[in-house]
Amino acid sequence: MVPIARGTSRDIRVANRFEVLRHIIAGSTVSRQRIAAETGLSLATVSNLIGELLEADVLVEVGFEDSSGGRPRGLVSVNPAGGVLVGVDVAETYVHVELFDTALSLLASVEEELHPEENRPAQVVGHIVSGVRAVLARGGAAPRRILGAGISVPGQVDRGGGVSVFAPNWNWHDIPLRGLLADGLSMPLYLDNPLRAAVVAELWFGAGRGREDVIVLNLGTGVGAGLAFRGSLYRGATNSAGEWGHTTLVLDGRPCHCGGRGCVETYVGAPGIMQHLRELDPDSPMLRAGDQTATIDALAAGVRAGDPVAAKVIGETARYLGVAIANVINLANPEAIVLSSWVAARLGEPLLDEVRAVVSRHALRHPLAAIDITLSELVGDPVSLGAATLALEGFLSAIGTRAAHLHR
Amino acid sequence: MVPIARGTSRDIRVANRFEVLRHIIAGSTVSRQRIAAETGLSLATVSNLIGELLEADVLVEVGFEDSSGGRPRGLVSVNPAGGVLVGVDVAETYVHVELFDTALSLLASVEEELHPEENRPAQVVGHIVSGVRAVLARGGAAPRRILGAGISVPGQVDRGGGVSVFAPNWNWHDIPLRGLLADGLSMPLYLDNPLRAAVVAELWFGAGRGREDVIVLNLGTGVGAGLAFRGSLYRGATNSAGEWGHTTLVLDGRPCHCGGRGCVETYVGAPGIMQHLRELDPDSPMLRAGDQTATIDALAAGVRAGDPVAAKVIGETARYLGVAIANVINLANPEAIVLSSWVAARLGEPLLDEVRAVVSRHALRHPLAAIDITLSELVGDPVSLGAATLALEGFLSAIGTRAAHLHR
Ligand SMILES: [Zn+2]
Ligand SMILES: [Zn+2]
Repeated sequence: MVPIARGTSRDIRVANRFEVLRHIIAGSTVSRQRIAAETGLSLATVSNLIGELLEADVLVEVGFEDSSGGRPRGLVSVNPAGGVLVGVDVAETYVHVELFDTALSLLASVEEELHPEENRPAQVVGHIVSGVRAVLARGGAAPRRILGAGISVPGQVDRGGGVSVFAPNWNWHDIPLRGLLADGLSMPLYLDNPLRAAVVAELWFGAGRGREDVIVLNLGTGVGAGLAFRGSLYRGATNSAGEWGHTTLVLDGRPCHCGGRGCVETYVGAPGIMQHLRELDPDSPMLRAGDQTATIDALAAGVRAGDPVAAKVIGETARYLGVAIANVINLANPEAIVLSSWVAARLGEPLLDEVRAVVSRHALRHPLAAIDITLSELVGDPVSLGAATLALEGFLSAIGTRAAHLHR
Repeated sequence: MVPIARGTSRDIRVANRFEVLRHIIAGSTVSRQRIAAETGLSLATVSNLIGELLEADVLVEVGFEDSSGGRPRGLVSVNPAGGVLVGVDVAETYVHVELFDTALSLLASVEEELHPEENRPAQVVGHIVSGVRAVLARGGAAPRRILGAGISVPGQVDRGGGVSVFAPNWNWHDIPLRGLLADGLSMPLYLDNPLRAAVVAELWFGAGRGREDVIVLNLGTGVGAGLAFRGSLYRGATNSAGEWGHTTLVLDGRPCHCGGRGCVETYVGAPGIMQHLRELDPDSPMLRAGDQTATIDALAAGVRAGDPVAAKVIGETARYLGVAIANVINLANPEAIVLSSWVAARLGEPLLDEVRAVVSRHALRHPLAAIDITLSELVGDPVSLGAATLALEGFLSAIGTRAAHLHR
């Protein structure tokens, strides 16, 4: 038996709605019979779920296929005119906004820079609002229905209340973001953080497709884990699961801005990697003081050029990262771990190779045999894609409720 | 929306069966209406599930209660004559066997000692078989139906195949235990390990009742975690989740029998605690070479008597254990962490108090605010209880399938 959570029939109906739509997006044009065969759901259930999605204009009927000898089977696909979704990735240095159709195909994107001093809530909200307006204009979405906007902001989020509970790098506490955004944006808004967005993007479109237990490790300035167990996002008791970056790797190690010492983040986040470089060669020309992106780019170029110091920094980073990943593997026994975000994208295969070698020495044999460690293969910005997917999930969840009708 | 796993309607039906029976066991005599109100399931669903459980003789009708003004409501309770369940806790030094009725009330127990050299599969199997026979005789269960026996063995288990894949302390590899046991025991056998048994026991009868995300930390010779997410046991991709004892706490720290260094187990397992004592006072009278149980007992007595060395050992153990627990809290954001097994039971409140203090310094504020850290309050042997509960779950899962009829 597949373990299954407690849940009401409505929760299950919504989860099945996600699953059916994932199969239709993947297959582009499919019959109810094929979805039933692929998902294990009964044909009656699939027909019923597809009926709801047709009614909500998410799907359209697109003709028939011959079934050998039987009646022709009706085919459905995602309705290209069904509406658009917005995904917003708010990071410390930029606001990146993307516009998607209902199949999550990219229609347009816009990026606004955030200057380091522009971190008051009103300033960030201003950039989000102008970014969303710009991407809607660029995408020519004005006449189309906007199903919702997913907004990913760094730190801990109360998604029900639409509040940024704590964003450490901006020292934000309990900022009612959704309320502030609602003045400028008249669409359903779904607030969450990059860890959740990244893992949802992998579940729908990346390494998580068809898998049950998947962990996405976001490697950037900060680091953290997005967790999916049994095929769906795991949030923990208070939506703060995934703070892998603040698990202790070195007892009494490097001080961390969380107040702890020896946190994973202090060794494998971009500033931690810069510190490895500084300790190995304080005068390295790769070290661009105050510019994490330039330093990581220089390291990546150094590795490609065979620079021994760059190789040592990658090795030192992998030594910590590999142990921290082995810890996650031993504890959670996932099928896949995906390295995502900008540091993983830039350091790429050379880092991955060294990480795999370290993991193979530290993970236990059985969970090690089950694991697939990869770089994210999603094209574009996984956090914007994931934020838009969270908005789609929000729209799908509301089908058949009063909230869905209010937004039509 | 409560997140919900992918699952077939049959998985969901079985999960709901567990949930309904849990409420009946807790309430002892209840109406369908009250279960519906407590679980959020519809009255029709509850009536249907109860019909199946009556049909399987797990429940009995026990009369009616007045509902103010309405029709009298039928009451059900667990059928005391419905059958018995066996729970076997195989550890390095003993085989402990308990007999339960269908409500998991203890009927009888038997313990057979395992001598250190008695670790060949045939020897251990012999003790399991004689222990089960003895407990059935003692419980007078001969005329009653045996619904199944849950067998917990240390190490990693392939439960589908009934194989002990790897038991490090006995150097067992791929031992087909269920096949060996089937010669002596003619009842359905469910093989699993103590981490799974302990968390299932807490979910049904302990700190996990009514909670979604619960982690049980077994503290004994070895240490490990039983994980429950969204109200049900989480096994990971290959049933080896929970190897928290082999996550790295101290980079390049104490050597571990898993081949790693600095594993949590080497600092907070019983031999690790003995090593703290040895390092603090090599000549301590509390140190009983080769006898973990006696040493831990002496430490517990020392703490009660105000011995400063004993207090220091508890402090040192808590320093490592608290950080390792904070790591789990930051990563998984559970509602409850339960300290179980014999080291936790013996060191008790003094250890718990110090652990809570260390955790409060290392866990992040939001997941810390959500967590409840307790000692297990289950009476008796949680692993035997959990093993029997796994057998009950196996029986409940098979209701309506051919396997269930074969065993009637
Ligand atoms: Zn930290
Ligand atoms: Zn180990």
